[in-house]
Amino acid sequence: MRAPKIPEATITRLSVYSRYLMKMKRQGKITTSSPDIAQGAGVNPAQVRKDLSFFGEFGTRGVGYNVEQLNWDVLKILSLDEEWSVALVGFGHLGHAVAMHRVFKERGFNFTSIFDRDPEKIGTKVKDIEILPMEQLEKVVAQNHTRIGIITTPADSAQAIADSLVRAGVQAILNFAPVHLSVPETIELREVDLAVNLEVLTFHMEMQRQGFASSRPANF
Amino acid sequence: MRAPKIPEATITRLSVYSRYLMKMKRQGKITTSSPDIAQGAGVNPAQVRKDLSFFGEFGTRGVGYNVEQLNWDVLKILSLDEEWSVALVGFGHLGHAVAMHRVFKERGFNFTSIFDRDPEKIGTKVKDIEILPMEQLEKVVAQNHTRIGIITTPADSAQAIADSLVRAGVQAILNFAPVHLSVPETIELREVDLAVNLEVLTFHMEMQRQGFASSRPANF
Repeated sequence: MRAPKIPEATITRLSVYSRYLMKMKRQGKITTSSPDIAQGAGVNPAQVRKDLSFFGEFGTRGVGYNVEQLNWDVLKILSLDEEWSVALVGFGHLGHAVAMHRVFKERGFNFTSIFDRDPEKIGTKVKDIEILPMEQLEKVVAQNHTRIGIITTPADSAQAIADSLVRAGVQAILNFAPVHLSVPETIELREVDLAVNLEVLTFHMEMQRQGFASSRPANF
Repeated sequence: MRAPKIPEATITRLSVYSRYLMKMKRQGKITTSSPDIAQGAGVNPAQVRKDLSFFGEFGTRGVGYNVEQLNWDVLKILSLDEEWSVALVGFGHLGHAVAMHRVFKERGFNFTSIFDRDPEKIGTKVKDIEILPMEQLEKVVAQNHTRIGIITTPADSAQAIADSLVRAGVQAILNFAPVHLSVPETIELREVDLAVNLEVLTFHMEMQRQGFASSRPANF
């Protein structure tokens, strides 16, 4: 069976809407509207309604959405109503930024192990998590039943680490190393290349320079 | 006039193809093919041909592509055949990771100024670039005719920084702060949220768990 045809961009926007709903919740707002959410996410209101419509009926016509209920519904759609055990491999500057990112914690992503090859980092602690040597990766990730691995190492070691993560039983890998990884079909893989984002920008800038109207990229 | 209808995903894939073409060039390869590029980028060969077809005719039927020529053509499409002056605002772990990212330098992105608010960082140097106080941002960015600003600060200061960058004359902003920014229509804005990528993964994992075949996300 194929997954329902839900555009990838819809999922990423739901994640952004959810972030904004959480902010409204913190601010004590009770109800909201699609124009309101749209403004917070930088899209148009019809887009918000269309994205939500893939998953059912939300809100009440003329009244809007209950912030807490919609936030919960979106979290459920994204499967963020549970805790996810995450292993972080590579504790350079990017790994550090990921581990410290407030949003990960808020959203139920729980860093259960961190690995690095630098002897000076091994044995030190980050938020009560001891940094372990690479040699322990497979054993520890399997023992913890960790489902997600995040790779923030240089490109040349990323494939071997992905292989280890797969052997240890993870179901998904988020790869920040600037190289394409091969993993079995059953593993969800997402690759983020920091430089690609900059290059999409320069493409659009050149379009503008040539006199084309800005086709503001669909962000996120 | 509207920009030609080129899918956003095509641009991001071109950037990935180009990275792989550069690698082949370094390895001394003379010719390549769409299956070859496809494998290096994790897509299918028809996708490679379709993406390139938006921009004209490349390669020779039965022979393939000349690596150096195609690499140059793709760089030109992405406007990477010139140097881009970039200002980096925020020198925490993420800012550090961005400044040190090998790929940015390789691709003609030239960090001409770095700003932070931490008195301990101000005055120190990173790759010969002195870290400057935030108060100098507008003046220095304007003087350097910097066209791109990268924001890697916490969410709460990001909008004010974006406003300063716009006043200083940048044409594009890459925002890593987990908040949506408002900028004038003429500014190209791209927002990267590290956590969103993880949430797209969990959505797909849940789809798999529910028995749907993996709809491997279109990466990058």
